[in-house]
Amino acid sequence: MKIILFALPGNEELAKVLADKLKAEMGEATIRRFPDGESYVRILSDVKDKKVVLVCSLHQPDEKLLPLYFLSNVAKDLGAKCTCLVAPYLAYMRQDKIFHEGEGVTSKYFARLVSGFADSLVTVDPHLHRISSLGEVYSIPTEVVHAAGAISEWIKKHIENPVLVGPDSESEQWVSEVAKHAGAPFLVLEKTRHGDRDVEVSVPQVEAFKNHTPVLVDDIISTARTMIETVGHLKKASMKAPVCIGVHAVFSGEAFWDLLNSGVEKVVTCNTIPHGSNAIDLSGLYVDFIQNFEKPII
Amino acid sequence: MKIILFALPGNEELAKVLADKLKAEMGEATIRRFPDGESYVRILSDVKDKKVVLVCSLHQPDEKLLPLYFLSNVAKDLGAKCTCLVAPYLAYMRQDKIFHEGEGVTSKYFARLVSGFADSLVTVDPHLHRISSLGEVYSIPTEVVHAAGAISEWIKKHIENPVLVGPDSESEQWVSEVAKHAGAPFLVLEKTRHGDRDVEVSVPQVEAFKNHTPVLVDDIISTARTMIETVGHLKKASMKAPVCIGVHAVFSGEAFWDLLNSGVEKVVTCNTIPHGSNAIDLSGLYVDFIQNFEKPII
Repeated sequence: MKIILFALPGNEELAKVLADKLKAEMGEATIRRFPDGESYVRILSDVKDKKVVLVCSLHQPDEKLLPLYFLSNVAKDLGAKCTCLVAPYLAYMRQDKIFHEGEGVTSKYFARLVSGFADSLVTVDPHLHRISSLGEVYSIPTEVVHAAGAISEWIKKHIENPVLVGPDSESEQWVSEVAKHAGAPFLVLEKTRHGDRDVEVSVPQVEAFKNHTPVLVDDIISTARTMIETVGHLKKASMKAPVCIGVHAVFSGEAFWDLLNSGVEKVVTCNTIPHGSNAIDLSGLYVDFIQNFEKPII
Repeated sequence: MKIILFALPGNEELAKVLADKLKAEMGEATIRRFPDGESYVRILSDVKDKKVVLVCSLHQPDEKLLPLYFLSNVAKDLGAKCTCLVAPYLAYMRQDKIFHEGEGVTSKYFARLVSGFADSLVTVDPHLHRISSLGEVYSIPTEVVHAAGAISEWIKKHIENPVLVGPDSESEQWVSEVAKHAGAPFLVLEKTRHGDRDVEVSVPQVEAFKNHTPVLVDDIISTARTMIETVGHLKKASMKAPVCIGVHAVFSGEAFWDLLNSGVEKVVTCNTIPHGSNAIDLSGLYVDFIQNFEKPII
């Protein structure tokens, strides 16, 4: 089946890289807003009998949903065989249970909506916590790919003498894995509790790593609070300025600038959400799923 | 069945007026955005076994859809008997056919989406052109109410010696109806074509109406171009400064200010879209449908 890719606004660069990797056609479409705020979509390429790949990362999802929904519908009305949504960042994964009476599980509602117009979905390291797999809420075939391997490669290639740093024991598993594949050591900050509000944070074996470049890794950098705190602890321990790596550059408000000014060497992210800090290309991870997905015949 | 109303952000005033008319409870809900742009909704009132009325005008619809969809879903998960959407302005009624190859009928797509989460819909004078009734695209019970009566009443009460003015022959039916119920005369601008691009517009019987206040009425004021042109023709004919009345205050960009500065006496709209120009209350028109709607047992 022929593959054709469409970039929703802001996803053009990723879509082009992905089209190259897939040796597939880039589709042409007009996606814009009318003066009254309604969305207009028009597909200019031939999509009949093709697998239509919609590239649309879903940060700031509310304003993206209708154009995406319309585009998928138009593609199908024009005879596309199926639509495959490439959403490197998947929205609404954090409200995954009713925390307070009267709330809804928006993860579930959002999944139901997306499953209603896309035939398949591939995404990178979604926030899977109380929902342990996307299949619990999405009724379409989904694939989760992981950024850890590409991050390890990037560290190996770009950082001399790195030491991976985890902010707490919860992060140990993830940090140790990235470290292993990067062929680097790792350390996890230690918390010693002296009282209810008196927690001392220390860097273990700090003397052994004075000449290493600390590398902090997190999946989502949103407010960047944890990362900025960790940078502070490393600074207090007289370590070198760290490199901060995030998978998803969510960066709410001034978070990116706050992090950049907190005493880091640099901030690097994967290209799941278009951002100036993107440096690690994950597009290769979507190729297999896109190529292999076939819409089940019902 | 008990009725409870919820206002989506911006619709609080209308919801309260409507709750008074219905002698129904105003529900409490938290509807806000997380720093990362995702929506959060929480219903604080008891909705179990009640008819839940969601008041949400749908101008600038893209960012409104998810909060509305979530709220409707939460209400049902909390045991609401049904949800009734009061959307005085209904979105996506203008892309009602494929004008150019590759486009989609977003009217139909949008209707399908709304029909998937709301059990009924009441709206004011939607743009029905190629789609002749909402039932063609909406699969839920819908009710269209009309602003003409309330506009006539407003004119009768607030304008001394009015003359209704239609910008062209297409508007004659609508303008004549408003005029009749306001007990006022009406006139329709005449176009005389002298050549392809040479169209002369004149005001018929202009001498008879020199002391009348011209009243322009339109359903949607979006760019306000037609209305501003009509104001110009009246000015050239030395008529008094007109009062402009719109049903839906869409007003894209600077349109409201352009119209206000075009030489009008005032600009008045119905309260279908919250706007400073709102002066004609239509809330009474939704009462019957809300009270009488019962979710069909399937």
